[in-house]
Amino acid sequence: MSKLVIVGTVAFDAIETPFGKTDKILGGAATFIGLAASHFDVDAAAVSIVGGDFPQEYLDLLSDRNIDVSGIEIVKDGKTFFWSGKYHNDMNTRDTLATELNTLADFKPVVPTDYKDAEVVMLGNLHPLVQSSVLDQMTTKPKLVVLDTMNFWMDCALEDLLNVIKRIDVITINDEEARQLTGEYSLVVAARKIHEMGPKYVVIKKGEHGALLFHNEHIFYAPALPLEEVFDPTGAGDTFAGGFAGYIAKTGDTSFENMKNAVIYGSTLASFCVEKFGTERMQNLSSNEIHKRLLQFKQLTQFEIELT
Amino acid sequence: MSKLVIVGTVAFDAIETPFGKTDKILGGAATFIGLAASHFDVDAAAVSIVGGDFPQEYLDLLSDRNIDVSGIEIVKDGKTFFWSGKYHNDMNTRDTLATELNTLADFKPVVPTDYKDAEVVMLGNLHPLVQSSVLDQMTTKPKLVVLDTMNFWMDCALEDLLNVIKRIDVITINDEEARQLTGEYSLVVAARKIHEMGPKYVVIKKGEHGALLFHNEHIFYAPALPLEEVFDPTGAGDTFAGGFAGYIAKTGDTSFENMKNAVIYGSTLASFCVEKFGTERMQNLSSNEIHKRLLQFKQLTQFEIELT
Repeated sequence: MSKLVIVGTVAFDAIETPFGKTDKILGGAATFIGLAASHFDVDAAAVSIVGGDFPQEYLDLLSDRNIDVSGIEIVKDGKTFFWSGKYHNDMNTRDTLATELNTLADFKPVVPTDYKDAEVVMLGNLHPLVQSSVLDQMTTKPKLVVLDTMNFWMDCALEDLLNVIKRIDVITINDEEARQLTGEYSLVVAARKIHEMGPKYVVIKKGEHGALLFHNEHIFYAPALPLEEVFDPTGAGDTFAGGFAGYIAKTGDTSFENMKNAVIYGSTLASFCVEKFGTERMQNLSSNEIHKRLLQFKQLTQFEIELT
Repeated sequence: MSKLVIVGTVAFDAIETPFGKTDKILGGAATFIGLAASHFDVDAAAVSIVGGDFPQEYLDLLSDRNIDVSGIEIVKDGKTFFWSGKYHNDMNTRDTLATELNTLADFKPVVPTDYKDAEVVMLGNLHPLVQSSVLDQMTTKPKLVVLDTMNFWMDCALEDLLNVIKRIDVITINDEEARQLTGEYSLVVAARKIHEMGPKYVVIKKGEHGALLFHNEHIFYAPALPLEEVFDPTGAGDTFAGGFAGYIAKTGDTSFENMKNAVIYGSTLASFCVEKFGTERMQNLSSNEIHKRLLQFKQLTQFEIELT
């Protein structure tokens, strides 16, 4: 069974959307990535940090999904990273109301010994130096390293970001971030420039408009499933990344054709994530539901024009 | 051979984009629709109005593409409809700089006798009463009526618009217009409400994000081909509609599965339209180029996940 290392925050989120608001609930990139990846037959480990205030039941929730949590450091007298945000009416934009780094400020990820030879490494959004330090610990070159990042690091730690980007295979960023990173408006040109920075594969997430996969001159465009109601977009990008990385880890196939499927799995899982607040929908997701929605994705996108 | 009636403006456009600007060039909805539909084996007629200032060579350009122009009224002492617009840097939004209705103000479309039994009617964006008057002239109920409209008529002639919408089969509007028409943000809910207004098929155009086709609970999502450079979006929506209507007229098949293909043909043709100013790209488009781009669309969207 392939090993998958997941590095990212495990956190408390408080979320406000036009549909309601939550108290502090379970959140964090590694949480969403892990829950998504847990639907594939892989040996996954989460590497993160939490405080003494983090409930054991949340850790159990990950363990119960067969995610190794030995790499989640618990700082007994520290507090868990906390993020709070409010979504605007269109659900595409949000304001951050609070960011309390707490224990995350001193996060030095330690990859568990058993996972230093993992085939796939999924680096969730974190300081690029922290992401780099994970790659330094791998004793075998991973078959695939996927990195997620955001505009904040482009503003504050661009050089470090460019250094870690050189070392990875797949980058996942949103359309505005791709434009910021390259100074190019056209996503086709932006993706080409990002290729030149290192990653052979570029995934550009466009939220409700889907996701694009670029590899040299090849492009694949997976639309997002149109939904009646988007309840809470928090974690959708991480869920996408977790589905993507989990599928690649399970299949062990890094061809462009197989990455198309990974994008479809990522989009499928993300379409569930937004249906309820936080991780709620992802905690109770059956393989039958995933299967049905994959069929919907096929119906949504596949057509029969005979061409030779 | 199926007959296709195309009703819409034949006009002069003056366009400014970040890439340059034009003098008065050939434009108009019926022009773009006709040029797109001319790639299918159909007997198409354009119904429109122009002034004495309209060059014969522009009419010849349509005739040369086998479009019957006997339904284009020429008002010798009148002037041709003129539109001028300037696109913003993102190419998704534009300002209208001038709209001179001229002869269009008194446009009373007359469908040529030979085309009153046409199988497909494509009503380009015009006053809804003008669109209705075309349907009144048909002696045989068309197999399919496609209507394009815009927010302007929702603001100024909503009742007339709702009346013509009752009489059609397919509506094509953009996402913001679908939201305005229904008061619903979710496009899935908006499409359902539009179904209830009459059209069995709803096509929502999302520009660079593609197009959605709704029919009851069925949804098809055709992404737009990501382009290196969008030179001039003018006419892309009409080109899409022309490809859609032309393909349906040629195949005579109004099933949902075949409409998916019509959407793909529409998207394919629209992807060429934006590559040059005005109709320039559409005037010199070979079937070989279309065929190649259809293959690109397949590669862009088709995947192979085995599901039962």
